[in-house]
Order: sequence, then structure tokens, then C-alpha cells
Amino acid sequence: MNRYFDYNATTPMSDAARRAWLEATEKHWQNPSSLYRDAGFAKQKLEEARERLATLLGCDAGRIVFTSGATESNNALFASLASKLPANARVAISTIEHPSVREAAHAAFQGRVVRIPVNADGIVEPEAVSEAIAKHTPALVSIMAANNESGALQPLSSIAAICHRADIPFHCDAAQWIGKLPSSSLGLCDYLTGSAHKFGGPKGTGFLVLRDEDEPLHFLRGGPQEADRRAGTENYPAVEAMVTALEELEPRLPSIAREQSSYRDRFVEALRDHFLDLRFISADAERLWNTTLLVMPRHENLKWLTRLSRRGFSISTGSACSSGKEGSSVVVQALGASPEELKRVVRISGGWHHTEADWLALANAFVEVDRELSEGGKPA
Amino acid sequence: MNRYFDYNATTPMSDAARRAWLEATEKHWQNPSSLYRDAGFAKQKLEEARERLATLLGCDAGRIVFTSGATESNNALFASLASKLPANARVAISTIEHPSVREAAHAAFQGRVVRIPVNADGIVEPEAVSEAIAKHTPALVSIMAANNESGALQPLSSIAAICHRADIPFHCDAAQWIGKLPSSSLGLCDYLTGSAHKFGGPKGTGFLVLRDEDEPLHFLRGGPQEADRRAGTENYPAVEAMVTALEELEPRLPSIAREQSSYRDRFVEALRDHFLDLRFISADAERLWNTTLLVMPRHENLKWLTRLSRRGFSISTGSACSSGKEGSSVVVQALGASPEELKRVVRISGGWHHTEADWLALANAFVEVDRELSEGGKPA
Repeated sequence: MNRYFDYNATTPMSDAARRAWLEATEKHWQNPSSLYRDAGFAKQKLEEARERLATLLGCDAGRIVFTSGATESNNALFASLASKLPANARVAISTIEHPSVREAAHAAFQGRVVRIPVNADGIVEPEAVSEAIAKHTPALVSIMAANNESGALQPLSSIAAICHRADIPFHCDAAQWIGKLPSSSLGLCDYLTGSAHKFGGPKGTGFLVLRDEDEPLHFLRGGPQEADRRAGTENYPAVEAMVTALEELEPRLPSIAREQSSYRDRFVEALRDHFLDLRFISADAERLWNTTLLVMPRHENLKWLTRLSRRGFSISTGSACSSGKEGSSVVVQALGASPEELKRVVRISGGWHHTEADWLALANAFVEVDRELSEGGKPA
Repeated sequence: MNRYFDYNATTPMSDAARRAWLEATEKHWQNPSSLYRDAGFAKQKLEEARERLATLLGCDAGRIVFTSGATESNNALFASLASKLPANARVAISTIEHPSVREAAHAAFQGRVVRIPVNADGIVEPEAVSEAIAKHTPALVSIMAANNESGALQPLSSIAAICHRADIPFHCDAAQWIGKLPSSSLGLCDYLTGSAHKFGGPKGTGFLVLRDEDEPLHFLRGGPQEADRRAGTENYPAVEAMVTALEELEPRLPSIAREQSSYRDRFVEALRDHFLDLRFISADAERLWNTTLLVMPRHENLKWLTRLSRRGFSISTGSACSSGKEGSSVVVQALGASPEELKRVVRISGGWHHTEADWLALANAFVEVDRELSEGGKPA
């Protein structure tokens, strides 16, 4: 039984990814920037992996820069754009962006970050993007693909179209989308962030797709790697594992989405049967098939988390990357919530291989924990 | 037979490091910043690894920030210091620093980088550091521990003492030292850079030791990881593999150094017997036991490299990270060389497990390639 329900925080490596990593570290561990034959093979394998990822994303391979993960990608984008743009340039981001977008944007564009609000379902409405553009003419609009807490899918194609009509580049942090929904629909983004460990790849690996193959951005200096944009010995084994993980998932995503969302819905139904006043965030929005964000009607979220953990279940109180107070949900704050409600937020995020029994066991554990906490009883 | 002689570019993962990585990805893949039991174990293992590394380095664990490698460490240090220091602050670096120090320093301290020269042996003399401090009062002095091309060991303790008398922090890029010579002697550095893949650990992993546990530097933003200094999901499996690789090597370094340097000396002797006018860089300096930098008396280095590669041997024309023209040696340029000489530079860097036969086979291959190239013969 799989009791891990925190796939939005991180995922176990897939067997295929682990095998790919092992093979790469055994056969192609040479420095891809070295000039002898075996290093050339490693370089070739790295570039093949870049092409394979480009095929999945529907973009040119030359636009992909491999990084150490989504956080680096987001920081690198904002920092390097800020160094190129005029000193009064603004960027526009939504109020529900991941902290690595929000804090990177604020650090790079101090006082020049426009915040685009969400509606009551946690969705950035295209009209809100139009308004922000009309009012502030930002140099970049950054809206995530799928929210990490609520799973709410943002109207990317409408937003991208609005940005493109205004000739403003559109960045999308798709760390939670990639590996859960088809990546090919992300080709319309000018800049795109992805993270391997969110879809069964290794930690410490990700990518940033740039607007242009020849875009002269420099994230890390000190070597000609990644077309002079990100210095440092290329981590081919991790890249190979990342691309392998995604290639394995992509063709299976439609059937996984159908199956898993039905299990998740059964889970939510079971919870609603027991908890009459459950607040279900983004309930009416299109969401990732794996994610449910709830405000529990009673008991603080750390109590839920701890008691469920004793039963072997792993859930979250929000994002593992949320800065500041543990367990504070960016989304629920953006939607307006009392401090007391914020303490009752829990996030459940499943994986690709859960069974209906896994989900129902989790629902059952919630009911048990509720009884335990409500009766003030000792843990089982 | 091990014909790989480019260990300064990168190394194969040690079996112990690979096993450690595999075990960590199987047992402790959870997000260390999550709050349930299994994530807590991962966090605990990560902090234990930090303590173990601190023990090897002779520093407080709280000073260590895990990064994606030496290039990130060096870039992060210069960028974050520049954002904190007054706008006229200078930094002093040697003329033989790795490009990730040199270019990061120039990018962050534009026009305010003081260059400290080396002597004819490729050594930064303590007097040169004193002079630079007296003349420019830099806010940081950065001198590498062991040069990546020549292997020349820099007089760290004298340089550190001079810096400390002047109350100037001392940064040392020890990427080539760590794993080849005892790390405990690096405790005197205020800032220290290390890279896992230079000593049998995985690529994409390294660290930066900060001056102070509470130093408020921010390398990547968007999460509370690494004591709020470097956001992003911690890569515990890679950290575990890195520390395991170093722990395995450390106690064996004195005997490895003795054994391997004698093999390397036999190799140099054999070359000198054949090539009467070999230029041997830093010949009179203390050097890493594995590294030899040569200006060959004839034939361009890419020809040497290619012909040796056909025989299965891997060597280098300088640093894989050298920007600009392939095969240009930072050290030989700093020592003054004609463009024609620069084209004949080769670097040979051995590993921990070479046999005398491996080294003599390489010497023999050099002689064969010389005959082949001199006679204009076809490759064997």
C-alpha cells in the first residue's frame, strides 16, 4: 500500500530514471566539455537528451538550459533579465506563484513587481492579465501552469495570447504540470521552468526554456557550458534520468489522469460524507488530477499531519518551500482566510500509481484521526 | 588498465558513493523540508552528512551551504557579497584562478577586481598578497588551494595569516585540493569552495563554507532551505554520495599521495628521456600528486589529444571550463607564453588507483604518437 500523498513536494525516483542514471554514471561519466572520444560520447548523449526533452515540450532544443532545478531556473531568469532590462522595467506575477518566483522577482525587480490577483477559485483570469498589462506595461508576465497547493490549472493559452498580442514575453513555472499533464501544450510559453524531482527524476536537476536560442543570458559564469549561459560541468547522468522519467510518463498521462482523478474524487466524497463543513479550495476550477487542498473544519493541520504520519500517511500543510511560518498556504492567503483557518489547511497530492484502496485508506485515516482528536484520545 | 588521465576535469563515481546515492534515493528520497516522519529522517540524514563534512573540513556544520557545485558556489559568493558591500568595494584574486572565480568576480565587481600575479613557478607569493592588500584594501582575497591545470599548491596558511592580520576575509576555491590532500588543513579559510565530482562524488553537487554560521547571504530565493541561504529542495542523495566519497578517501590520502606521485615522477622521467626540450610548468613548485602540465616541444595539443584518444588515453589541453578558445591554458598564459607555445600545452591528471604500468603505458603512448606525428604517418 502506498501511503505517500505528498507528490507535489517531491516524488520517489522511477525505476526507469534510476536505471538511466546508473547506466550514465557507469558509461558516460566523462566531462562532456572535454575533447577526447569518450567525453564526446557523453556530450552527444547530453545533446540527444536535450533534443528528446525539446520534442516532449514542443520547442527547439537550443532554447533549453539545464539547471539544478526549478528554484535555480526561476532565480536565474529574473536575475538575468533584471541585469539586461532598463532600471525602471517591471514584471507582473500572480499572487499565487511559488516562492521561488515571487521572492526571485522581488529580489531582482525591487519595488517593480506587479501582482496579478486570482478569482475566488484561485484562477488568474485573462482579464486580470490584460488589466495589469494595460496599466503597468511589464517587461515580463509570469504565471504558473498548475498551482502547487491547490492544483488549479491556469488558463495558459489565453494568457499567452494576451501577452503575445502586447508583445510581452510570457514565463510559466510548470514545475507541477510537467509529468502530470502533457508537456506539449506548454510550447506556447516564451520562458518555461521545469523540475525533475516532481516527476520521478532525480533531485538537483531541472531546466529553463529560453525565449530564443541565441538569447544572451548568463546564469552562472566560468565556462562555455550550456551555450555559454550556465557554466559548470554538465550533469549528464541526472539529465538522462530526468528525460527518461518524463518520456516514460508522457504517453500514459491521459489514462493516468482519468483513473487517478476518479480515485481522488472518491476520496473527496468520502471526506465530505464525514466532514460536513469542509472547505475545498479551487473546487470549481480545473485542477491537477492528483491534488486536493482543504481547510479542515477542526483541528490544526500539524495535528492532522502528525497523526496521519503515525499511521504511515504523508501529507502536507502547504508547500514545503513556503517561507516564513510553517504550514502557511500562499493560495489560501491569496483567497482571503482568517489566521485561524490558515492553521487548518492540508494538501493531499497523490502519484501515478495509487490504487483506489490507497485513497480510501487515506480517507478512512482522516476519519479515525478526527475521532481521536475530537475525543482527545491518545494516538492509536 | 586505466587509461583515463583527466581526473582534474571529472572523476568516475566511486563504488561507495554510488551505493550511498542508491540507498538514499531508495530510503530517504522524501523532501527534507516536509514535516512527516519519513521526511524528518531525510532531514536528519542530511544534517548528519553536513556534520560529517564539517568534521572532515574542520569547521562548524552551520557554515556549510550545499550547492550544485563549485561553479555555483563561486558565483554565489561573489554575487551575494557584491550585493552587501559598498559600491566601491574591491576584491583581489590571483591571475591563475579558475574561470568560475575570475568571471564571477568580474561580473559582480565590475572594474573593481584586483589581480594578484604569480611567480615563475605559478605560485602566488605571500608578499604579492600583502602588496595587493596594502595598495587596494580589498574586501575579499580569493586564492585557489591547488591549481586545476598545473597542480601547483598555493601557500594557503601564509596567505590566510596575511589576510587575517589585515582583517580581510579569505576565500579559497579548493575544488582540486579536496579529495587529493587532507581537507583538515583548509579550516583556516573564511570561505571555501568544494565540488563532489572532482573526488568520486556525483556531478551537480558541491558546497560553499561561509565565514559565519549566521551570515545573511542569499544565493537562491524561494524557500527556507540551507538556513534560508539557498532555496530549493535539498538533494540529500547527492550530498550523501559526496560525503561518503570524501570519507572513503581521506584516511588513505597520505599513502595514495606517496605512491601516485612516485608513479607520476616515473612518467615525467620517461617523457624527459624522449623529449629533450619539454617545458614542465611549476616543476619546482609543490604540486598535487596527480597533476602534470607540459608544453610539448612539437605538435599541437589537439593532435596529441586526438592520437592519444585513439589509443584509449584521455588527457586534456587545459581546463574543460576555460572559456574562449579551446585548449588555452590560463596558467601558461599567466606565466607568459607565445601563442604558438599555448597551442602545445597538455595536462595529465591521474587518479587514486592508477598503477605504475598505467603511467608508463601513457608515457609510451606519447612516444608512439610523437613518432607517428613526426613521420607524418597514419594513426595506428
